[in-house]
Amino acid sequence: MRNSSEERENTSKHLTRLESFSDGVFAIAITLLVLEVIQMLHSDGRAGLGQLLLGHWKSILVFFMGFLTILICWINHQLVVSYAEKADSNFFWVNGFVLLVVTFTPFPTAILAEYLETEKHLAMAVFGFNYFMMSVAAYSLTAYIYNRLSSKENNELLLCYKLIYKYTIVYTFLVFLVCFFAVPVAIFLYALLFIVFAFPKDFASKLLNRRIKRRSRKHVPMHAD
Amino acid sequence: MRNSSEERENTSKHLTRLESFSDGVFAIAITLLVLEVIQMLHSDGRAGLGQLLLGHWKSILVFFMGFLTILICWINHQLVVSYAEKADSNFFWVNGFVLLVVTFTPFPTAILAEYLETEKHLAMAVFGFNYFMMSVAAYSLTAYIYNRLSSKENNELLLCYKLIYKYTIVYTFLVFLVCFFAVPVAIFLYALLFIVFAFPKDFASKLLNRRIKRRSRKHVPMHAD
Amino acid sequence: MRNSSEERENTSKHLTRLESFSDGVFAIAITLLVLEVIQMLHSDGRAGLGQLLLGHWKSILVFFMGFLTILICWINHQLVVSYAEKADSNFFWVNGFVLLVVTFTPFPTAILAEYLETEKHLAMAVFGFNYFMMSVAAYSLTAYIYNRLSSKENNELLLCYKLIYKYTIVYTFLVFLVCFFAVPVAIFLYALLFIVFAFPKDFASKLLNRRIKRRSRKHVPMHAD
Amino acid sequence: MRNSSEERENTSKHLTRLESFSDGVFAIAITLLVLEVIQMLHSDGRAGLGQLLLGHWKSILVFFMGFLTILICWINHQLVVSYAEKADSNFFWVNGFVLLVVTFTPFPTAILAEYLETEKHLAMAVFGFNYFMMSVAAYSLTAYIYNRLSSKENNELLLCYKLIYKYTIVYTFLVFLVCFFAVPVAIFLYALLFIVFAFPKDFASKLLNRRIKRRSRKHVPMHAD
Repeated sequence: MRNSSEERENTSKHLTRLESFSDGVFAIAITLLVLEVIQMLHSDGRAGLGQLLLGHWKSILVFFMGFLTILICWINHQLVVSYAEKADSNFFWVNGFVLLVVTFTPFPTAILAEYLETEKHLAMAVFGFNYFMMSVAAYSLTAYIYNRLSSKENNELLLCYKLIYKYTIVYTFLVFLVCFFAVPVAIFLYALLFIVFAFPKDFASKLLNRRIKRRSRKHVPMHAD
Repeated sequence: MRNSSEERENTSKHLTRLESFSDGVFAIAITLLVLEVIQMLHSDGRAGLGQLLLGHWKSILVFFMGFLTILICWINHQLVVSYAEKADSNFFWVNGFVLLVVTFTPFPTAILAEYLETEKHLAMAVFGFNYFMMSVAAYSLTAYIYNRLSSKENNELLLCYKLIYKYTIVYTFLVFLVCFFAVPVAIFLYALLFIVFAFPKDFASKLLNRRIKRRSRKHVPMHAD
Repeated sequence: MRNSSEERENTSKHLTRLESFSDGVFAIAITLLVLEVIQMLHSDGRAGLGQLLLGHWKSILVFFMGFLTILICWINHQLVVSYAEKADSNFFWVNGFVLLVVTFTPFPTAILAEYLETEKHLAMAVFGFNYFMMSVAAYSLTAYIYNRLSSKENNELLLCYKLIYKYTIVYTFLVFLVCFFAVPVAIFLYALLFIVFAFPKDFASKLLNRRIKRRSRKHVPMHAD
Repeated sequence: MRNSSEERENTSKHLTRLESFSDGVFAIAITLLVLEVIQMLHSDGRAGLGQLLLGHWKSILVFFMGFLTILICWINHQLVVSYAEKADSNFFWVNGFVLLVVTFTPFPTAILAEYLETEKHLAMAVFGFNYFMMSVAAYSLTAYIYNRLSSKENNELLLCYKLIYKYTIVYTFLVFLVCFFAVPVAIFLYALLFIVFAFPKDFASKLLNRRIKRRSRKHVPMHAD
């Protein structure tokens, strides 16, 4: 039988490889997006370059949206995973679900670039459904780390992330419905979401401070909820 | 001549780079799958988006199967390799064989997506042959680590992995034959396989416990077989 | 609340993952360039191989330029980031800006390869604008690390990098304008730039020595500017 | 000024990132090869699957050759780089040269797959020229590490690698010339080369033992040449 010190060392190795594998997947998904932009160079035959760039500015814009999406997803992933102190079999699957959504992201991004003009409602909805899945994945990851893999003294902030991602599931589902009716409104609502998740730590810290204040007013202990 | 402490340090460096290189290969292979799904956007000319998604749901399903396959393969790889305590020249080649099969996987996956409707038996058999090669690779890797690279006190569980992968070679060969006759049966049998390898540690632990019980009934020492 | 030792350990983990994610993005961007060269094999139908290689030597040359660009960018990135002693939320975004430019680089490279003969001024200007953005990104990264993430005793050399990148913003903007009028002159000026950034450490060290000499002549303390 | 302990720590960081960046490039180059095999699925219109696999078995064979080439290159890279104890500015460039050849490898591989039947001599020569460049790169890397970055007590074996790679430059140049006249002979000679570099450590150890014996017969000290 393995003794506990070796078991612990091995556990940290599992975590390291999970992080390194995930970083690879994020890095590739974010870089593959440009292939879609390059594609348009070949699809348009021998058009003039100026004309090509002007005619495809929406594709380039969608490239930036896709890039931002995956970057924000990576920032939140590395923040939340830094709370994990070990890795077990289930964690590989919860994390695998996150990676599945990330890997899939270039597809709805390509759909948005291709169909933004001809079928904007459906294209936006496909893209928005991806955001919904992403928040389900982020919530699952955070909840699993909070409940199973983190030590209880250090995860006050992690609880806040969990709460934020939970609200985000509802939010992204509602905006997904909005996509079918009003694309500009949906884009505006997604932009709001981006602002929150661009700086998740600062946002969660504010939330935590508010919760601490409220609690201290009511004289209840910290881990009661 | 190198002294033994430097030799050991260097050996651990070889292992680290083998893991980091392997993680890279797995991460890229799993992410490249989506390119095949994006491809269908360009191949169908100017079809409607709804029509395109409905007409290609099988491609999207095959993407998920390919993703699952490589993810499960990675989970098993990192589990088994965590038992290795050093890396030698042969290990690079045994591991290289695993990576060859992983790298190749997007090809049978693309074949399955393309030919599932027109030539399902042959397409499924090509995909199934890949699973057979994968279990041969997994068995070779595990056997090599068990025999040469792990310390004898810690690898009771590793022996169970080795046994499981050995049975899997026979299993995947039989299912490969089934592919030529009954595709749904083959898919069902592969799904069973997925369930085992999704949680290889738990499965191997159960096997180990059964072996320990049986042995203690017969009063034979642990490493006798 | 987290205690400071755990906070520090976690911070170093954020930095490690930022580096590993960035290395992945650089590695993929630099390797994707070859896809564009392979593309020409398929676009030209059944031309003879000799004819194909001779007819496309410019594409191959542009591949080398793209490779050099991203390699130099990586060398400078890893040099500057080695001064960071922690990672905060803003750093993820400053670094994300660098990665955005790196990820985008295969697109202007592909444009240059495709349009170098028919619309050389515009194609070169698009490529040159990318260099301009790259120096803005490099300056932002360096300035942020200098001001916020490095310890004040060790970053004399970092200050020199910051100065060099600042001058480079002006330089690349001017060369960008030159692209519209004289492509060979622009290429020559970019080649000069490459020579400086191929060995940034040596160049910055010389600059630092000159500054130290000048200061010691004027009898002013080291951190006065 | 930095003190020497911090300088050393930073130097090891440069080395770590060089390794992680290189691993990424190798991993991507080796995985991109499969894209070329998938390509044939789309280029042949609606051919039967059996017919497609049989008609393209040469493409699949070339995929294996490309895979073997890059895998062997990686094995030798990680072996040689493990002797480096620091990283300096020039090392980034010598290593960058190796990565350039590795990144470029999918292109001659694709050429070989495409033109093996119609223009075998030229296609094989392009592929062979890549091997010649690869051995120049391997020699440069090894010589630089031997002369500048390794400690003199530990690198007896490294000297043997250096010698082997030097001979290989001549060998690959000669086989490159053979490509123009007799493709099967060239393939046979490359296969011999593969056998040596598949297990570089074992081969170099034998060479080292022979050198030690010869020296001890002549009574000359070890580092005399």
